[in-house]
Amino acid sequence: MERRCLALLTDFGLSGPYVGAMKAVILGINPEAVIIDVTHQVGPQAIEEGAFLLSQVVPYLPGGAICVAVVDPGVGTARPAIALQTPRGIFVGPDNGLLSAAFDDDERAAAGQPGTGSLLPLPPNCRAVELSNERYFRHPVSNTFHGRDIFSPVGAHISTGVPLTEFGPPAESLLVLAPWRSRPNGDGRIDGRVVYTNHFGNIVTDVRGADLTSRSVRVTLAGRRFDGLQRSFQDGPEFVVYIGSSGYLEVARRNANAASALGVQPGDRITVDAAP
Amino acid sequence: MERRCLALLTDFGLSGPYVGAMKAVILGINPEAVIIDVTHQVGPQAIEEGAFLLSQVVPYLPGGAICVAVVDPGVGTARPAIALQTPRGIFVGPDNGLLSAAFDDDERAAAGQPGTGSLLPLPPNCRAVELSNERYFRHPVSNTFHGRDIFSPVGAHISTGVPLTEFGPPAESLLVLAPWRSRPNGDGRIDGRVVYTNHFGNIVTDVRGADLTSRSVRVTLAGRRFDGLQRSFQDGPEFVVYIGSSGYLEVARRNANAASALGVQPGDRITVDAAP
Amino acid sequence: MERRCLALLTDFGLSGPYVGAMKAVILGINPEAVIIDVTHQVGPQAIEEGAFLLSQVVPYLPGGAICVAVVDPGVGTARPAIALQTPRGIFVGPDNGLLSAAFDDDERAAAGQPGTGSLLPLPPNCRAVELSNERYFRHPVSNTFHGRDIFSPVGAHISTGVPLTEFGPPAESLLVLAPWRSRPNGDGRIDGRVVYTNHFGNIVTDVRGADLTSRSVRVTLAGRRFDGLQRSFQDGPEFVVYIGSSGYLEVARRNANAASALGVQPGDRITVDAAP
Repeated sequence: MERRCLALLTDFGLSGPYVGAMKAVILGINPEAVIIDVTHQVGPQAIEEGAFLLSQVVPYLPGGAICVAVVDPGVGTARPAIALQTPRGIFVGPDNGLLSAAFDDDERAAAGQPGTGSLLPLPPNCRAVELSNERYFRHPVSNTFHGRDIFSPVGAHISTGVPLTEFGPPAESLLVLAPWRSRPNGDGRIDGRVVYTNHFGNIVTDVRGADLTSRSVRVTLAGRRFDGLQRSFQDGPEFVVYIGSSGYLEVARRNANAASALGVQPGDRITVDAAP
Repeated sequence: MERRCLALLTDFGLSGPYVGAMKAVILGINPEAVIIDVTHQVGPQAIEEGAFLLSQVVPYLPGGAICVAVVDPGVGTARPAIALQTPRGIFVGPDNGLLSAAFDDDERAAAGQPGTGSLLPLPPNCRAVELSNERYFRHPVSNTFHGRDIFSPVGAHISTGVPLTEFGPPAESLLVLAPWRSRPNGDGRIDGRVVYTNHFGNIVTDVRGADLTSRSVRVTLAGRRFDGLQRSFQDGPEFVVYIGSSGYLEVARRNANAASALGVQPGDRITVDAAP
Repeated sequence: MERRCLALLTDFGLSGPYVGAMKAVILGINPEAVIIDVTHQVGPQAIEEGAFLLSQVVPYLPGGAICVAVVDPGVGTARPAIALQTPRGIFVGPDNGLLSAAFDDDERAAAGQPGTGSLLPLPPNCRAVELSNERYFRHPVSNTFHGRDIFSPVGAHISTGVPLTEFGPPAESLLVLAPWRSRPNGDGRIDGRVVYTNHFGNIVTDVRGADLTSRSVRVTLAGRRFDGLQRSFQDGPEFVVYIGSSGYLEVARRNANAASALGVQPGDRITVDAAP
């Protein structure tokens, strides 16, 4: 048995027995597993939100970590279940876009416009298998809780050293969501979108700090205009525009909730121009 | 010290310091303990809900696991505190029905009608002790937080190998809740009840799939009728009736919240007939 | 690597990726770390609440435990980041009053009136350093997420045995909040305040049981009077006044929510007199 990190992300919430059942199954297979929760409060069936949140933790995981991710409205239908190995770790979950978190912007560039996804060929430095070898499932396999019966036991078996090829035939392509990165158009304007609003009410967008050429920006969001980039929450006026801890442009309200104050939700448009 | 799994379930919520204090006490006694959370969001004082949720995780726990369960409106009164060993694991908590999760349907059959409980003799393959040996408590013992001062230290001492008999005198009987299983009456109809509504709004009932003789069922719930069993959430119409991951008949709304849409709560009646 | 306990407390909530990122960073530095969550649901930017909640777990932590605490409205500004060693453990976080949890009532007595704080010299049995050695930070260091980039990696490096002096120059004083202890005035009356209301709606005050000379008390709170101390929740009338598990006078409503029934919030006044 190996002391190896398994990171879990689901939309199961913490009020039910579902996450506990997954952890029980994992520890029954690998008592040395070290389990961390990314979050279990992804919005119900919110695949893109789940992928985004997972992508925010992947860069920090210890080497060899295994992510078991389950936001799976199609559970029990024909959607494939996969295990995916990339230079960033191993990912186990449904092939519905959720595992986009395993790839960076460039790898996902061909996946269409922001908010959409495409079936993409696997990058050459990655491999994937479709989970079909029932020997590694928990039985009986339910139709509605593959988190407990397929994804957790497969993740746990991988953590004990079972090679990926044992779990099923190779998968050649994957459903991948477009990168969270709205690019500048010809005149330097960026038409972006809100990707996530967090617990503080801070608004995370898909505008990357690296795509801004100046701190003199004008942000238009929810019919309001905010001028200039600040460095931290305490700087400047009531609403603060800054580059967040993941490199995205964010909008916060000092010691208060910007998303509810502005009525902003994921998917809303944001525009970033040079300040006049 | 042994690397042994302790599973915690409480109604303490996650916003206070209570669960953290329990974990601190456990790790102070057994630094090798592996703690998993079943849930800490049982409704305040909701003993039956707590017992049901714990029962959903017990079958998946690793061998030798110890459950510390605390939903304890009678804390500080005369209700006994017990440790219970069954073929399914070791259970530590108040003797108020919560530890019903340790027994299966047949063992609990004598415990009266659904929704009630009875004092039952301990099954022959189980043993229990009343916790009275203060040597294994944390001192001073408060009147209102036995989770920290009695149940956690006792569970942790058990995990280090202290034998059950050390903790107090044998308990011969236990308060046990009736099984979550409404049986068919003479004409094949099942008059059941809602046991739990989860985070997604899926409605879990006490009707067992094993008691249905056909997929052609008519479900009556909250004044609405739903015909036919589906296999997964994406099948069929807006509301989906299916056998859930624990073998119970459940009702969901596709990609939405059935419990709030129907105004259903635990305890509500459900009827299952043959479809006409 | 040492198997050592790190206790985390933040106001980050559990719905985002922030706590998961902290745990990933910690396990990347010390794979043997044993992480427990005190809570991540401190009110946004609620420094005093965070300090109080942490203080409720500190006495129970295993020897050598390291607390990483982040409630940090001033992140990215000039407020110092510190590591503090006391006889009760090691504490890593912003120097904004949050780490008051490391000190007892007597050590904090000079810190002014309840609800306020002061810069105090470090007690002689403690030492502290200002975190400035970037070798132990995660790079690039963001302006808005020192929990991931400074406090977690420093806590993890301490858990591997790096001596405190490595992290930066000594800090001679610290921002300390006044003790949660309203003392009796001349005629035996105590004018106290509500410090915290928990998940059950129980109201925790800063009146210490040790300061009461009799169980015959009259409590005045939210315009209501409650006479007499009870021993447990099931005793006495609808509203129950008792000494809680941390030694503070608390007010609960039997099997219900006292805080919402009375409209009480942290900071509200409470008066305790001898019963007439």
